[in-house]
Amino acid sequence: MSSLGEFDLIRQLFQRPQAVRRASLGIGDDCALLPIPAGEELAISTDMLVAGRHFFDDVDPYTLGHKTLAVNLSDLAAMGAQPLSCTLAVALPALDSAWLERFTQGLWDIAGAHHCELIGGDTTRGPLTLNITVLGSVPSALALRRSAAQVGDDIWVSHAGSAGGIGDARLALQALLQQRGMPHALPPSADAAAFLPTVRHRLELPQPRVALGLALRGVAHAALDLSDGLAGDINHILQASHVGATLFADDGQQHGLLHATSPTLRALGADTALQFALEGGDDYELLFTAAPTQRAQVAHIAHQVGLQLTRIGQIETTLGTRWRNLQGVIQPLHLRSFDHFATP
Amino acid sequence: MSSLGEFDLIRQLFQRPQAVRRASLGIGDDCALLPIPAGEELAISTDMLVAGRHFFDDVDPYTLGHKTLAVNLSDLAAMGAQPLSCTLAVALPALDSAWLERFTQGLWDIAGAHHCELIGGDTTRGPLTLNITVLGSVPSALALRRSAAQVGDDIWVSHAGSAGGIGDARLALQALLQQRGMPHALPPSADAAAFLPTVRHRLELPQPRVALGLALRGVAHAALDLSDGLAGDINHILQASHVGATLFADDGQQHGLLHATSPTLRALGADTALQFALEGGDDYELLFTAAPTQRAQVAHIAHQVGLQLTRIGQIETTLGTRWRNLQGVIQPLHLRSFDHFATP
Repeated sequence: MSSLGEFDLIRQLFQRPQAVRRASLGIGDDCALLPIPAGEELAISTDMLVAGRHFFDDVDPYTLGHKTLAVNLSDLAAMGAQPLSCTLAVALPALDSAWLERFTQGLWDIAGAHHCELIGGDTTRGPLTLNITVLGSVPSALALRRSAAQVGDDIWVSHAGSAGGIGDARLALQALLQQRGMPHALPPSADAAAFLPTVRHRLELPQPRVALGLALRGVAHAALDLSDGLAGDINHILQASHVGATLFADDGQQHGLLHATSPTLRALGADTALQFALEGGDDYELLFTAAPTQRAQVAHIAHQVGLQLTRIGQIETTLGTRWRNLQGVIQPLHLRSFDHFATP
Repeated sequence: MSSLGEFDLIRQLFQRPQAVRRASLGIGDDCALLPIPAGEELAISTDMLVAGRHFFDDVDPYTLGHKTLAVNLSDLAAMGAQPLSCTLAVALPALDSAWLERFTQGLWDIAGAHHCELIGGDTTRGPLTLNITVLGSVPSALALRRSAAQVGDDIWVSHAGSAGGIGDARLALQALLQQRGMPHALPPSADAAAFLPTVRHRLELPQPRVALGLALRGVAHAALDLSDGLAGDINHILQASHVGATLFADDGQQHGLLHATSPTLRALGADTALQFALEGGDDYELLFTAAPTQRAQVAHIAHQVGLQLTRIGQIETTLGTRWRNLQGVIQPLHLRSFDHFATP
């Protein structure tokens, strides 16, 4: 008879009735079939997460299920695309049904929140590895391309204010490393136990800014989501658009990168806060550019989607990235974002 | 600055000019953008391959690149879908540029042959794992669904005659296991060195039956591609269609499963040939059902696409699968196909 073990697993865990139906044919055939809204194009992104590299082996599987889909939805958000569906491929060292139930619950919850249907999957034995491909749609002319930044544009970044800012995910990661006795980048005086509960959700339960991406259609020029660290990520826009930028720490009027960090992170000192915000990683906030004439509209969108949008710089003709620090001094910005192969 | 290592790797190896352009926005943004032909639906499938489980660690990377995409294109073929594009996610233990060049060459060659554009990727460090998601399109009403088999349908299977038949991939795998001194299922007298060169391509360079799938639109009822073994795979059609089947070994008139095996495999004896063809795995041929009134049309399609199409059974009302052996005796078919978690 058929191979009941694997197929039953997939059926039970991944064929649960879903909050939203997008596909005309879902899991269980050679392919899923998905109608695309008329006049729109398909937006696709894929991310692979590997145990011990992208997450700790003992991570709560609920948060892992959440994050695996969240980081992909974040790519759709950065494109201004509406999520439609996703496929999931999983290599597992063994069948652990309790672990899988928690994992899929995390996946279902965020999938339902963003009207994203799981329409295909593959499950195999192997070192714990997760791969989601996410599918969305966007009218081609409204897609937020990295190549669309214009000289003179403001540079904006989203965050959640006191509920979470840029660099908090890195702070949480460093705190977890400190707790495990591993090398970390926290100042000697920092006490992980004191602030980890406040920032841990920023690392483990990132919220993809889908509503923001949709609201920015026709307003923003270029956009991307922050995944490997702001100082490195912004280069993808600058290089694709053949422009440069100056970022600033604080303009004295509630703008600048320092205002996109959380009070928790700033409690470690402004220098640490800015370093973590620039080098960061795992922020999954949107960085976007828009003409200065759109400032009122951007403020309106921030209110509409319930996020903070902070202006942190300007697009310029001169290539490269410059940094205006807290003392008002402008310097070239030389920081690396995370490279999966550069670190041992 | 940005993380040059990883991004340069992706750029150099995966942004090569491709034989066909499908996407309006390719690799290098948060998402790729892909137009879908008007009136068609998107067909999606995903497969994950793990080193040491789906392929030997020392496999020729060219054939690995080929097979990684081929097994996904085979799913599109089984749906009657036209390939459009694919995404590739790779976890690699280290950056080995010679290995990667061979791997991507294998991928490019088969992608070009099937007009499939690589439009997105992710590369990370980790145990060697490959995941492709393939995208195609098909008019919804013409898709070859597993649930569409009708009582009275003929059951057909594709193969390449003396150039390769059902079960040859399993024969090649067993030969490789024998050569490595690992447990295998070859008869004691079998000499791997004698036949491996003839069948190895069936394991390592499977040819997805895309042209056949397209030609079967409107002709076949149900279809799937053989990946885990015919005897198990056919259950997916039978269960989805709420029907049963009798398969036969040889009807004395050039039909029956024995005629879908290669002379190389039959040289090991008819019993071994039929066992390998039924339990198989990695065949990547199409199994489909069609009304007996379509026999002439099926023969015409076989000629048109340059494949052998052999009739091996019939769809019946009585659930389950029966087997009419070489002696004409009908027995219940109790064979397992490959289960990724059932084997240790």
